[in-house]
Amino acid sequence: MVQDNIKLFALNSNRPLAEKIAKHMDVKLSPATVKTFADGEIALTVDESVRGCEVYIIQSISDPVNNSFMELMIMVDALRRASAKEVNVVIPYYGYARADRKTRAREPITAKLLANFLQMVNVDRVLTLDLHANQVQGFFNIPVDHLLAAPLLAHYFYEHDLLNDIVVVSPDHSSVSRARNFAELIGAPIAIIDNRKEIDQNSNQAIIGDVKNKNAIIIDDMIDTANRVVCSADVLKNAGVNKVYAAATHAVFSGNSIQKIDSSRINKVVITDSILLSKDKLIDKLAIVSVANLLSDAIIRIHNNLPVDELFNKNFK
Amino acid sequence: MVQDNIKLFALNSNRPLAEKIAKHMDVKLSPATVKTFADGEIALTVDESVRGCEVYIIQSISDPVNNSFMELMIMVDALRRASAKEVNVVIPYYGYARADRKTRAREPITAKLLANFLQMVNVDRVLTLDLHANQVQGFFNIPVDHLLAAPLLAHYFYEHDLLNDIVVVSPDHSSVSRARNFAELIGAPIAIIDNRKEIDQNSNQAIIGDVKNKNAIIIDDMIDTANRVVCSADVLKNAGVNKVYAAATHAVFSGNSIQKIDSSRINKVVITDSILLSKDKLIDKLAIVSVANLLSDAIIRIHNNLPVDELFNKNFK
Amino acid sequence: MVQDNIKLFALNSNRPLAEKIAKHMDVKLSPATVKTFADGEIALTVDESVRGCEVYIIQSISDPVNNSFMELMIMVDALRRASAKEVNVVIPYYGYARADRKTRAREPITAKLLANFLQMVNVDRVLTLDLHANQVQGFFNIPVDHLLAAPLLAHYFYEHDLLNDIVVVSPDHSSVSRARNFAELIGAPIAIIDNRKEIDQNSNQAIIGDVKNKNAIIIDDMIDTANRVVCSADVLKNAGVNKVYAAATHAVFSGNSIQKIDSSRINKVVITDSILLSKDKLIDKLAIVSVANLLSDAIIRIHNNLPVDELFNKNFK
Amino acid sequence: MVQDNIKLFALNSNRPLAEKIAKHMDVKLSPATVKTFADGEIALTVDESVRGCEVYIIQSISDPVNNSFMELMIMVDALRRASAKEVNVVIPYYGYARADRKTRAREPITAKLLANFLQMVNVDRVLTLDLHANQVQGFFNIPVDHLLAAPLLAHYFYEHDLLNDIVVVSPDHSSVSRARNFAELIGAPIAIIDNRKEIDQNSNQAIIGDVKNKNAIIIDDMIDTANRVVCSADVLKNAGVNKVYAAATHAVFSGNSIQKIDSSRINKVVITDSILLSKDKLIDKLAIVSVANLLSDAIIRIHNNLPVDELFNKNFK
Amino acid sequence: MVQDNIKLFALNSNRPLAEKIAKHMDVKLSPATVKTFADGEIALTVDESVRGCEVYIIQSISDPVNNSFMELMIMVDALRRASAKEVNVVIPYYGYARADRKTRAREPITAKLLANFLQMVNVDRVLTLDLHANQVQGFFNIPVDHLLAAPLLAHYFYEHDLLNDIVVVSPDHSSVSRARNFAELIGAPIAIIDNRKEIDQNSNQAIIGDVKNKNAIIIDDMIDTANRVVCSADVLKNAGVNKVYAAATHAVFSGNSIQKIDSSRINKVVITDSILLSKDKLIDKLAIVSVANLLSDAIIRIHNNLPVDELFNKNFK
Amino acid sequence: MVQDNIKLFALNSNRPLAEKIAKHMDVKLSPATVKTFADGEIALTVDESVRGCEVYIIQSISDPVNNSFMELMIMVDALRRASAKEVNVVIPYYGYARADRKTRAREPITAKLLANFLQMVNVDRVLTLDLHANQVQGFFNIPVDHLLAAPLLAHYFYEHDLLNDIVVVSPDHSSVSRARNFAELIGAPIAIIDNRKEIDQNSNQAIIGDVKNKNAIIIDDMIDTANRVVCSADVLKNAGVNKVYAAATHAVFSGNSIQKIDSSRINKVVITDSILLSKDKLIDKLAIVSVANLLSDAIIRIHNNLPVDELFNKNFK
Repeated sequence: MVQDNIKLFALNSNRPLAEKIAKHMDVKLSPATVKTFADGEIALTVDESVRGCEVYIIQSISDPVNNSFMELMIMVDALRRASAKEVNVVIPYYGYARADRKTRAREPITAKLLANFLQMVNVDRVLTLDLHANQVQGFFNIPVDHLLAAPLLAHYFYEHDLLNDIVVVSPDHSSVSRARNFAELIGAPIAIIDNRKEIDQNSNQAIIGDVKNKNAIIIDDMIDTANRVVCSADVLKNAGVNKVYAAATHAVFSGNSIQKIDSSRINKVVITDSILLSKDKLIDKLAIVSVANLLSDAIIRIHNNLPVDELFNKNFK
Repeated sequence: MVQDNIKLFALNSNRPLAEKIAKHMDVKLSPATVKTFADGEIALTVDESVRGCEVYIIQSISDPVNNSFMELMIMVDALRRASAKEVNVVIPYYGYARADRKTRAREPITAKLLANFLQMVNVDRVLTLDLHANQVQGFFNIPVDHLLAAPLLAHYFYEHDLLNDIVVVSPDHSSVSRARNFAELIGAPIAIIDNRKEIDQNSNQAIIGDVKNKNAIIIDDMIDTANRVVCSADVLKNAGVNKVYAAATHAVFSGNSIQKIDSSRINKVVITDSILLSKDKLIDKLAIVSVANLLSDAIIRIHNNLPVDELFNKNFK
Repeated sequence: MVQDNIKLFALNSNRPLAEKIAKHMDVKLSPATVKTFADGEIALTVDESVRGCEVYIIQSISDPVNNSFMELMIMVDALRRASAKEVNVVIPYYGYARADRKTRAREPITAKLLANFLQMVNVDRVLTLDLHANQVQGFFNIPVDHLLAAPLLAHYFYEHDLLNDIVVVSPDHSSVSRARNFAELIGAPIAIIDNRKEIDQNSNQAIIGDVKNKNAIIIDDMIDTANRVVCSADVLKNAGVNKVYAAATHAVFSGNSIQKIDSSRINKVVITDSILLSKDKLIDKLAIVSVANLLSDAIIRIHNNLPVDELFNKNFK
Repeated sequence: MVQDNIKLFALNSNRPLAEKIAKHMDVKLSPATVKTFADGEIALTVDESVRGCEVYIIQSISDPVNNSFMELMIMVDALRRASAKEVNVVIPYYGYARADRKTRAREPITAKLLANFLQMVNVDRVLTLDLHANQVQGFFNIPVDHLLAAPLLAHYFYEHDLLNDIVVVSPDHSSVSRARNFAELIGAPIAIIDNRKEIDQNSNQAIIGDVKNKNAIIIDDMIDTANRVVCSADVLKNAGVNKVYAAATHAVFSGNSIQKIDSSRINKVVITDSILLSKDKLIDKLAIVSVANLLSDAIIRIHNNLPVDELFNKNFK
Repeated sequence: MVQDNIKLFALNSNRPLAEKIAKHMDVKLSPATVKTFADGEIALTVDESVRGCEVYIIQSISDPVNNSFMELMIMVDALRRASAKEVNVVIPYYGYARADRKTRAREPITAKLLANFLQMVNVDRVLTLDLHANQVQGFFNIPVDHLLAAPLLAHYFYEHDLLNDIVVVSPDHSSVSRARNFAELIGAPIAIIDNRKEIDQNSNQAIIGDVKNKNAIIIDDMIDTANRVVCSADVLKNAGVNKVYAAATHAVFSGNSIQKIDSSRINKVVITDSILLSKDKLIDKLAIVSVANLLSDAIIRIHNNLPVDELFNKNFK
Repeated sequence: MVQDNIKLFALNSNRPLAEKIAKHMDVKLSPATVKTFADGEIALTVDESVRGCEVYIIQSISDPVNNSFMELMIMVDALRRASAKEVNVVIPYYGYARADRKTRAREPITAKLLANFLQMVNVDRVLTLDLHANQVQGFFNIPVDHLLAAPLLAHYFYEHDLLNDIVVVSPDHSSVSRARNFAELIGAPIAIIDNRKEIDQNSNQAIIGDVKNKNAIIIDDMIDTANRVVCSADVLKNAGVNKVYAAATHAVFSGNSIQKIDSSRINKVVITDSILLSKDKLIDKLAIVSVANLLSDAIIRIHNNLPVDELFNKNFK
């Protein structure tokens, strides 16, 4: 790909993923100097001309989320003032996405706040992956290209021959559609963990659907504290499930979640590289599927004005 | 309530509900002349001064939805130009709410379009009821007071002594949270209709969870064509359910849905008056719970700067 | 015209005109699926990629005007989210255009409301025809290409040899400029119907200017209920006019206007196809001049960055 | 009127009118220092606190119009930054109002530009008088209170017993409605000057309607160069009119217009004080009717949240 | 102060200052729950109703600046959605204020970005202290009340009898006006450190103005790394200055700046509590002057619609 | 330079400079008709098609500043409505730039007001020269290309061999950075005029730094009334300076400033042609350096998407 007026920039949240994307696109990451001062202030300079260019910035809004987000905002400001023609932001993990509605009085809707900020700095397009709720697309008036990692995750189970006697499990009530969609991809039935507070989590009653003597894949968009997935695994094991797998797009893995997973009854956790993991989190139970090719294919299609939705329809096999 | 600078206006989609609200608030509906010409153009005049007033317009975005919506927009324009101090819109039924995300390439997000229009005409607040998805709150930057009819619906079953051996049923995967919340209100278990395309809808496999020999309440936010609720009833009956009830906030009842319900195996459908029903739709199976008091309590609280969320916490008993 | 990145879409208000425009431009109408549900909700999908394309949507805001307008808005939303580069709307008939000012207290200015909505969905340009008042151009901050059908209408009279002893008649006080401009095109004098309420409409006093023994062309921008044109014809006939013709760009023809025209003393009504007429309205007295070539020439000029005003200067001969 | 939080400011275009308004309202003009430097830069300071106040600024956008307008804009900026609660602008003469549409290709619409600027500095309301076209109201999204001077002008003719054998004359095609409205006020017929370029201006053909042996009032919204009114007077005199009067709201009187009027065949010109006239322009033929009471009544009504339209309905007798 | 509809909220950057302000105003800080998750996401709830209230949020944008800023933004979002009538933000230290212009190509202007965000979330007013450049006021279109700590700092020197033989020193070229203003307050001459790169910092040439045998107060708006103030002290001492004091409003004190100051030749550093200092930074050389009363006086005046500028004119004696 | 879609327009403030720019770019100025009526209203028409063009308008906001500014705004409005693709404004002198902050209560920030207006009419880019404060860049969200004339001014002194024993003098406290930057260009020391009100301006105390027996260049961004530069010259002469030169980018020269300069002790004043001077101001003491090549080089670089900052780094030798 030899394109003079396309520029790819990586910020600090997930540079390895950005490098993979650049490599797959056969372009170089453009240079930018980003410094963070002792009090947290970010100073940056774009180190080559972007006048008239179509720019893509790759940045997950991941730990530390506020810094990652402000870094992105400041970068867009610099690029706009430097006369970039078009600024596209590639956000593999859209942080704060769970704050997408008020669950009680006097809460913010931070996912919308971020969308407002992104639009205020005059971003032309957002390319993102597995939003917590599809409705977050509607927080934007600009085009949002929303990719799905489910086929990549499903493909992992397929190529490792782990699709026998599978039941796909939704770890709570609000994720049943995601489980159903994943189940369609692999032709499996579903079950739901019914996490009512008043009943005994470990009792059989906590599961809706048949799981006994099956292998379960707990599917979610992200794993954060890992409490939910670890509890679900316990419930499933107690209900007679053989192997318990978990699959999720975004590996937030905050706090001591990795330790919880490591010592849990889950056999394997399949995630993507939308969030960069530190080395100490790379335990054996973890399998990482890369979304680099998916994202770079999307960028190339956007650049060439080709439809992006065809990427969704790729069969996982 | 003797308040000089508060004005209530009713437009044409649901005047009986507006009148109930006004009566409960002990205020008069303010006069406005709304004419629709033969080609559909709406002409309106506000018939008393609203300078410096706090105005509430009551209008469901219901059949015919585009006219109902444009009527609301034109009314707000007239009120703004007439120097109203504050324009609050009370939208018992927010039409187009299902178009809240792109489900495939090149679709609009019409629920957001409406939100944008409402904000562009400079509405100060939206008071609405049971949005299809909570995330639609985030389509707005202005305050949205979002009321829930579930306690009113649950109360109907309670006062009619219909809560024995109940299982609450979600008619599809994306509504499980709503079913779970309703089930909490009445202390019942839940089940899910697993509407996968490839399996036989009437087979037992289509249900996740135990329903046999129970009475089922199918819960949804709205009943439109009634296909889903009628099919679900069949599946439930085939699975050994005794009585099948349905409960929903918004009675869209489009096309011949009422006939479908009437000839279905559903025993009772409990809905609210968020949408005005024509007389021919008032079949015996239908029970209508009014949201007038809920809405008027909310308006009074908003007017008096009292918190509205306390209305959500009302116990249905 | 072989242009890959130009796309023409027709919505439902006037598809025959859109097809003529497409044919004259030698492009195909691009496919879009537009469904209207029983309650009036519109669902649509754009059926081919529009990424990076220059799009033209052809839609008159005609009966039913609210549906036609919302259809247009929703289509623009879909196209924007689908990454169209440029969205131009071609509005042969701009509905609500008479609501362009407050004529009394507490009225809306709906023509401005529509302009605000069109700009809020980020339309790049409006191409329209014979606005009720030229000032409506100023309701927009974006480019408005405003075409005039007068030369086409005048040409009809010229080619049918109907320009002898003509007086051009303005049917009221506010349309005298339009009459004067039309009279310039054909070199005729003007007269005005002085519709004061207190005087006898059929008396000679109701006419300002000489009309006796002449043939009259009553000129207007639109004919809606036809009351004004039919009354004017009576006044003119009573004043000794021989033949009475009427010419107008927009054939709103609401209610039983066609019957009124048919049974009136008007000899011929010349209109354009800016609004689609149902077959039952095609009475013999009606002559329809197409604006398809005018609009397609304008689109081609816009596409090629050529001035559009040259189209205005076309001599009707 | 003892109101602590209402403040009236006068800028430099028409301070005598502002003083009359203040006197009639029984409030003092608040102090502000406005300096203009040699190169035209305006520096101003508001000289008393306006925090939380409802402010009215009185400024005609009259000669020199750009300075008058910028003075107004800068004043609003100062007031906003000084925490005024509400900024209302009283614009007795809205300059550039004739630039309200494109009359040929590549013209600006400067009346809209001014409206955009007024809204951008966050003005709450515009109170103005006899806009050139009513549609200019629609250039605003904020409330525009639009007053009419016609009853005041008509009253002058009434109280000076000049209403015998009157015909009201529109000096061109686009002002016929204004003439008709004025004629209604005094119960007179109308005539129109048909200013076609190709015909002899002084011939009888140039008039549509009967004027012979009558007294004529040429009515217009403004008199600028006076060419039109002076020519019209000649045409009328040649057609046998006895006395020719002219009446207009806005006395722009640019260039040597006063000399033209003084040496013309016009008997009397009745105007208002919406624009301040220098002493050398106060010729005997001129009668000035003050709009101060009309404007101050409107301000008082706005302040008290009373309807303003009742001021329009005042009978001139 | 017994005001029901005024609410003060403190966020996490400087709660002790907020508490002093509240105490001085005799109001209680309103409760809000602010949690920060392991990955940096902030979740907050406002814990009492703010409907119709005039709210003041106290938050310095200090270390960690991005978190402090986002906390503020999210809080404003919550308050807006909770129907606060007015949201005022009190920002004792406006972080990123040095990023107020491009110093080279392709830099951001982050101070403007923050101003844009503050306005986008619809803040009504900013109350801040000693902006790095006065022009930052112009980054806002909303009212900015800009307080000055110089009189408080000067008062410290006065009451501790440290004003003998004083020369006020600007540590670089861009701060000379600040030094001159401070010198006016205490009636002293000024000098400037001429920090040219090519000359020897410790030579006498580096100082413009007479300092020998005087006592110097180096004045700045903030002390960040302390490099500049420590170097300046060395230059001054080498030039024969007796005592070297430093005074600055904002004690950023990042990295090991406190150690640098402690081991420097500076005798005393006078700062304010606009930024909260950790206990380990409270060395003996440091004197802290509180801005709590200044800020609370300003809030009270704003609330009572009294002018705030009178606070600037307070004489330090 | 043969570019079909680039258009250069000159307005009336500085046509000779625009012609030089056009000549250096080898393009013709595009025709536009600009008329100013007797009352100051500006009417203009763009006289050739600009559809799809990249337009540059050259206009200094100089005497008469309000007219110059409004002319620019109206021109942009016309170009936008005429479908220009991109509108760049070249503002060699940005008037009102000194009004960039509030210096006391209740002042406007007019430089920001202008920036807001420029952005509201949808200008794509501002190309300007030596803003009074760099922070004015941050008044914009769009790209501002900010050029510096200092190298051109320095080059004048170099090529006329006037750089011996030079001290660069800042005429007040707020311009020291500008003096320092200029001093860096020519390798000279600096001094500052300490214009305290209470001390004798002509005494030696008024100067900070060594100037005796040197030649001084007083540097400023503009010379307006010339009071400051003339006073400074007196102070310097009294302090033993040999030759006094002044250098400034913008020759505002308002009032009788030229006479003051002519009769002053200044030996030479070097300025640029950013502002057009009338012939009577061209006294012998004046040397004018043209910025035409600098501006045209910048336009060419912008057009070709080349970085503009390289123009800043040009060595003055």
